[in-house]
Amino acid sequence: MDRADLLERLADIAVVFGANVQPGQTVSVGADHGQFEMARAVAASAYRHGAGFVDVYYFDPYVKRARIAFAAEDSLSFVPSWYVHRTLCLGKERVARISLSGPTAIGLLDDLDPDRAGRDQLPFVKEILDVIADRTTNWTVIPSPTEPWARLVYPKLSPEEALDRLWEEVAHVCRLDTPDPIAAWGERAQALGAAAGRLNDRHFDALHFEGPGTDLTIGLFPSSTFHAARDETVDGIVHFANLPTEEVYATPDPARADGHVDSTKPLVLADGTIIRGLRVRFEGGRAVEVDADQGAGVMRGRVAMGEGAARLGEVALVDREGRIGRLGTVFYDTLLDENAASHIALGDGSDQGLTDDDAKRRNRSHIHIDFMIGSDDVGVTGITRDGDRVPVLRDGSWQI
Amino acid sequence: MDRADLLERLADIAVVFGANVQPGQTVSVGADHGQFEMARAVAASAYRHGAGFVDVYYFDPYVKRARIAFAAEDSLSFVPSWYVHRTLCLGKERVARISLSGPTAIGLLDDLDPDRAGRDQLPFVKEILDVIADRTTNWTVIPSPTEPWARLVYPKLSPEEALDRLWEEVAHVCRLDTPDPIAAWGERAQALGAAAGRLNDRHFDALHFEGPGTDLTIGLFPSSTFHAARDETVDGIVHFANLPTEEVYATPDPARADGHVDSTKPLVLADGTIIRGLRVRFEGGRAVEVDADQGAGVMRGRVAMGEGAARLGEVALVDREGRIGRLGTVFYDTLLDENAASHIALGDGSDQGLTDDDAKRRNRSHIHIDFMIGSDDVGVTGITRDGDRVPVLRDGSWQI
Repeated sequence: MDRADLLERLADIAVVFGANVQPGQTVSVGADHGQFEMARAVAASAYRHGAGFVDVYYFDPYVKRARIAFAAEDSLSFVPSWYVHRTLCLGKERVARISLSGPTAIGLLDDLDPDRAGRDQLPFVKEILDVIADRTTNWTVIPSPTEPWARLVYPKLSPEEALDRLWEEVAHVCRLDTPDPIAAWGERAQALGAAAGRLNDRHFDALHFEGPGTDLTIGLFPSSTFHAARDETVDGIVHFANLPTEEVYATPDPARADGHVDSTKPLVLADGTIIRGLRVRFEGGRAVEVDADQGAGVMRGRVAMGEGAARLGEVALVDREGRIGRLGTVFYDTLLDENAASHIALGDGSDQGLTDDDAKRRNRSHIHIDFMIGSDDVGVTGITRDGDRVPVLRDGSWQI
Repeated sequence: MDRADLLERLADIAVVFGANVQPGQTVSVGADHGQFEMARAVAASAYRHGAGFVDVYYFDPYVKRARIAFAAEDSLSFVPSWYVHRTLCLGKERVARISLSGPTAIGLLDDLDPDRAGRDQLPFVKEILDVIADRTTNWTVIPSPTEPWARLVYPKLSPEEALDRLWEEVAHVCRLDTPDPIAAWGERAQALGAAAGRLNDRHFDALHFEGPGTDLTIGLFPSSTFHAARDETVDGIVHFANLPTEEVYATPDPARADGHVDSTKPLVLADGTIIRGLRVRFEGGRAVEVDADQGAGVMRGRVAMGEGAARLGEVALVDREGRIGRLGTVFYDTLLDENAASHIALGDGSDQGLTDDDAKRRNRSHIHIDFMIGSDDVGVTGITRDGDRVPVLRDGSWQI
C-alpha cells in the first residue's frame, strides 16, 4: 500500500470503527502543527461517511513556545473562556472526537524554564475530563506519522526511510495490513474484554508489580473494575477510545500505592518534552520521590501541580499478544508505548464501574500522565482480600 | 533586511500600531494554512509586547474542500455554535484581533460546484460584523506573503525570486523600508483624514464614476460620512484596521446605485476563487446583471445570497499618493488591491457616522465583497444636493 492508501485506511478506521461517527454528526478533530495530511484524510473520510460538519483544530507548539518564552508569569495558566465553552459544547452537542497522536515538535521547549512550561497545559483543557467522564462523546485517538516523529524513532535511517518504516509499523499495529482491519479489531477487543472479565471475577484487593528496579503494590477499590477497548456513550454509541488498544485497565485507590517503580520506556509529554529513566517512589499512595535521567524537573513540575497530580488514577495491564510489544520499537508516544506494556497514570481517574462511595474517593486532577512500568521481566501478582497471592502476568502472558 | 527581519518588523507594526495591543490583552490571530511563519511572528511579537494570551486560529482550506466535495447539501451552511460564541466573546472580552491576508490555496475549489462552494462561508462567521459594528475590538489586517501567493503575482519569476519580490513589495507598501514606519503611517493617516474631512464638508448627494466600461452613480445618505485609516474602539483604543491603508470610505444609500461598472482589477474571494473581468449593472441600487470573464457563477452565487448581497455597503476613494497603485502590481488580494484603486463593496455596510434613520436604511448582509472600479482613467465627480457637479478625483489626484 502506498502512503495515500495507508492514510485513507487509517482515517476510515478512525471514523467508522474508532469514533464510530454517526450520520449528520459533528466531528471535532484535534491535530498538531505538522499533522495536516492525516487531519485532512480524517476530515475527508468523515464527510464521505456522512458527518454533518468537521471542525479541525490545529494546535501550534511554536506559539506555545513564544508564550512560555515571553508571557507574564501570572498569565501562563490562563485559558480563554471560549476554549472551555467549546470543550463543554462537544459533550452537550454530542460531538464525535478524533485526536491525532504522535510527537511533532520534539525538544522545542527544552531550553525554556520547565516551571513556566509546566504552567501552560494547552492544548489540554481540563473540562475535557468531565466530558469524557460524562460519556457524551464517541471518540478515538489514532497515531499520525510525521517526519519529526520518524526521525526520533529511527535516528539511524534517512528521513524518508524512517517515515516509511514508521508508517509500516503503524499500519501493522493498527492492523491495517490484515484483510479486514475492522474484523481483526473486533476479535482483539473480544479477547481483551474476556481478560478484563476474568480479572473482575477475582475481586483483587491490590496488584503487585515486581521486576528490575520495581517493587510496587497498588491498592484497588472494592468496586475497581477492569475495562478493555470497547466504550459506549450514554446514548449507546459503541466506540474504541484508542487505536491501537491492547490494554486492560482499572481505577486504583489513590490512597494505597507503596514501593518504587522504574519506568520501562521513555515518556513524551504532550508538549514534546521527553522524560527518560523516570523513577518514582510512592508512600501511602503519594509520589514522594520523582527522579529521571532526563526531564526530571519537568516531571516534578507536573507532580507538584496539586495533590491529585501526585497520586494514581489508572493501572493498566498489557499482555504479549498485542502487536506493539512484539515490535520492540520505542515510539516515544504514549498511545503506542502504553499499549506495549503495563502502565500506571498519575492524575485523574475514571469513575467507570465504581460505586458512588468509591467514585468519590477516586483520584481527581487536571493531569493524566501514563507511564510504562511493565515488561516481560516485570511480574504482576493479584492480592486477594484474604491476602492470597495469585499470579496474573508472567513473561507477559496471562496466568488467570 | 532579510526575511526574518521583515517578518519581525511587519509583526511588530501589526501589534504595536495596527491593532495597538494593550498590556495583558488577549489577541486573536486569524491565519490560513501556510501562513505559519507570520502567525508565529505576530504571536511572538504580541507576547513580547505584553499580550496576556495569543489565540492563533488556523483555517484549513483543504478541509473546506472536503466539505464542499462530500457533505450533504443541506449541511453546507451550518456553523458550529462554538464558532459563533467565540466570535461574540472577542467583543465581550475586549480582545485584540490581527488577521493575516493573502491568497494561500489558489484555485483549490475551482473544480467544485460553485453553488455548493458559495453556501459554505467559513472561515467567515457573520457575527464578526456585529463585533466590528460595536467597535469592541481593536484590530488590524496585514498581508502575509507566502510562496503560492508569490507565484500567482509573479508567474514569470522562479518561486524563490517571486517570494523575494513579494516580500520586497509588501515591505514597501507597508512602509517597512522607511526609517520609522510608525511615523510614516502617522503622516499618511493624517493626509487621508484631511481628504475625508474635505469630502464631508461638501455633503455630496452622490458620486459619479466615469471611465472605460464604467458609468455608475452611487447615492449617499445625508449623513454618509467619509472615514480614513484611524479607528477607535468604544473604550478609546486607537487602531488601524488595515495595514496598508490608503482609502477614504463611506457607507452609501443601498437604494440608489444606477449604471454599469467594469472591475479594474481581478478579485480573489476568501476561499481562493479568482474573479476576473467582473462587470455589474445596477438598477435602483440593486445588482441586476453580474458577468465576468472568470468566476461569474461563483460571483452570481454570492450576489444571490440575499437582498443585501446584491446592494452596496461601501464606496471608497483612493488617490495616487498611496504606495500600492504606483507599483502597478496586481496582488490578487483585496487588502492590497483595494488600496490601489477606488472601489465599492457588495454587502454589509458600516453604521459609522450615520444618523439613526440612515443607519436603519443602510445595507445589511452576511457578505462584504470589495471590488476595484477605479483607475487613473476613471474620474470621480461629486453631485451636490442642488445637482451641481464637482470634480473629486481626476487622474488619481484630489480636485477638492
